[in-house]
Amino acid sequence: MGIPYNNQISLGEGNTPLLWSKIDGRKIAFKCEDLNPTGSFKDRGSAVLISWFRHHQIREIVEDSSGNAGASLSAYAARAEIRAKIYIPASTSGPKKCQIEAYGAEVVSVPGLRIAAAEAARAATNSDIPYASHSYLPFNIPGYATIAYELLEQMEEPPKTVILPAGQGGLLLGIYRGFEAACRSGFCKAMPQIIAVQAKECAPLWIRFVSGKEEFDAGSGNTTIAEGISIRHPVRDAAVMKALRDCSGRVVVVDEVDILIGRDMLAQKGLYVEPTSAVVWSAIQQLTDECLDPVVVILTGSGYKYSHSGI
Amino acid sequence: MGIPYNNQISLGEGNTPLLWSKIDGRKIAFKCEDLNPTGSFKDRGSAVLISWFRHHQIREIVEDSSGNAGASLSAYAARAEIRAKIYIPASTSGPKKCQIEAYGAEVVSVPGLRIAAAEAARAATNSDIPYASHSYLPFNIPGYATIAYELLEQMEEPPKTVILPAGQGGLLLGIYRGFEAACRSGFCKAMPQIIAVQAKECAPLWIRFVSGKEEFDAGSGNTTIAEGISIRHPVRDAAVMKALRDCSGRVVVVDEVDILIGRDMLAQKGLYVEPTSAVVWSAIQQLTDECLDPVVVILTGSGYKYSHSGI
Repeated sequence: MGIPYNNQISLGEGNTPLLWSKIDGRKIAFKCEDLNPTGSFKDRGSAVLISWFRHHQIREIVEDSSGNAGASLSAYAARAEIRAKIYIPASTSGPKKCQIEAYGAEVVSVPGLRIAAAEAARAATNSDIPYASHSYLPFNIPGYATIAYELLEQMEEPPKTVILPAGQGGLLLGIYRGFEAACRSGFCKAMPQIIAVQAKECAPLWIRFVSGKEEFDAGSGNTTIAEGISIRHPVRDAAVMKALRDCSGRVVVVDEVDILIGRDMLAQKGLYVEPTSAVVWSAIQQLTDECLDPVVVILTGSGYKYSHSGI
Repeated sequence: MGIPYNNQISLGEGNTPLLWSKIDGRKIAFKCEDLNPTGSFKDRGSAVLISWFRHHQIREIVEDSSGNAGASLSAYAARAEIRAKIYIPASTSGPKKCQIEAYGAEVVSVPGLRIAAAEAARAATNSDIPYASHSYLPFNIPGYATIAYELLEQMEEPPKTVILPAGQGGLLLGIYRGFEAACRSGFCKAMPQIIAVQAKECAPLWIRFVSGKEEFDAGSGNTTIAEGISIRHPVRDAAVMKALRDCSGRVVVVDEVDILIGRDMLAQKGLYVEPTSAVVWSAIQQLTDECLDPVVVILTGSGYKYSHSGI
């Protein structure tokens, strides 16, 4: 038990609550992905990815992560009895690192930017030990697509606007493809407008969206407290741009101070999320009349996930 | 929105996953109450309690808590737009205190044992500001009873053994009454045997169960890392003893070192819980052949809930 004969590995991910709240007079639905088993939406992807590895009798994997993906992958690997080695930037929050280690994964702390952790992980792979990258491998996308299916089940009418944090843009692509499939199948009449939110300190998707150029300076490289979306070179940026065009979506950016304000405001409505998730608060303030109701906001990660340094 | 006309306050509590795992060759089902909105089973009680206060137009409450109940009550109070003042023992873990404050509750740190926080909370009540005690008020019990109903839905056959941590014994009484109602209604043929687990350092229910005496020395008063069940004078100890007799249940105790071992062993199966929850690991080891399958173990609180001090 634990590992069924069909190798489908689950920790009970998905079926997260949808909570309605009134923000500045407007009804907003919050999809609480922070309530997944390891505290983030990444669990939907890990369930697919680790089940695939288990099916192929993989016994050991390596991965790099800024925290949530590593914690999620480690938990599912533990459930599947697969050894995991996780390379993390040295700046990763204490709670996420503790969580990864608790699941029994080997944690390797890599100094420097996030890309250094990715390079170290890739160097550790071989023909028996695959690079279980949540960024490069395609398995997370169908996992995240299930959020769209659940929204269609949970709401009286399909969402017309979806707000979500974007780093690599995997969540965006997953939800986009979920609604695309639903539209093709007749479960949904129109794609919602997707509003991707980035921290102004690290906003390559925003720069590309606004400039329209494929080659651009990815910004100052300053760090942001929205560590989960601190990605300077998104792997699927072209696919993200195409998805945004198709759904008449856009990218908005948020100042650091507004991330902290957002975190406090959400918590005071009973929604305790990490700074990465809290970028959505400013995006709600930036909603125009052209953004149609119903509006859904994806809360991506738990408030426990950030170090308790009193910030 | 957020507050419906019928004053029913919810943050999406309940419907938690039931995960099967093989422990020492025996199939065990884990009910993941740590995946409730604020990270503990207390949310089932807070939903009932805060809805009741909202219905009675209460605008402010006080409560004492060792952490989980305070965090839960604060979140539901925030959702209900009720002011909350939470008295906590000064020894409460940092993450729980941070979480309570994040929800906008006023936190008062009280030196000394847990009872000092309770006395301070009671002293702060008046005719307009009730004592929202999760220990004394009866509203949590029907909230916890829903765990029994869900188990009957989630399992192929009703559990014959239920293992759970016990401090006040509220969770035990709730689950007991849930199964009692199910038996009366014909949804369940027999009460499961309930095994309550206490930390040896603070085990008044165990002492009373073993000695059979109503008056007894509640132990050394040593602190335990199982802070959520560190209760020297359980309010409903007589009701707990009656419930245990009725279901042929018993109380077992766990050493501190076995709590830490249990925490690590559970995490390495993908189940990341706080030390209070981890007392169940030793109880699983103490299962005898007389404890019938299927066995359900209640995981009460999230692993994020404990301070990340490297212990």
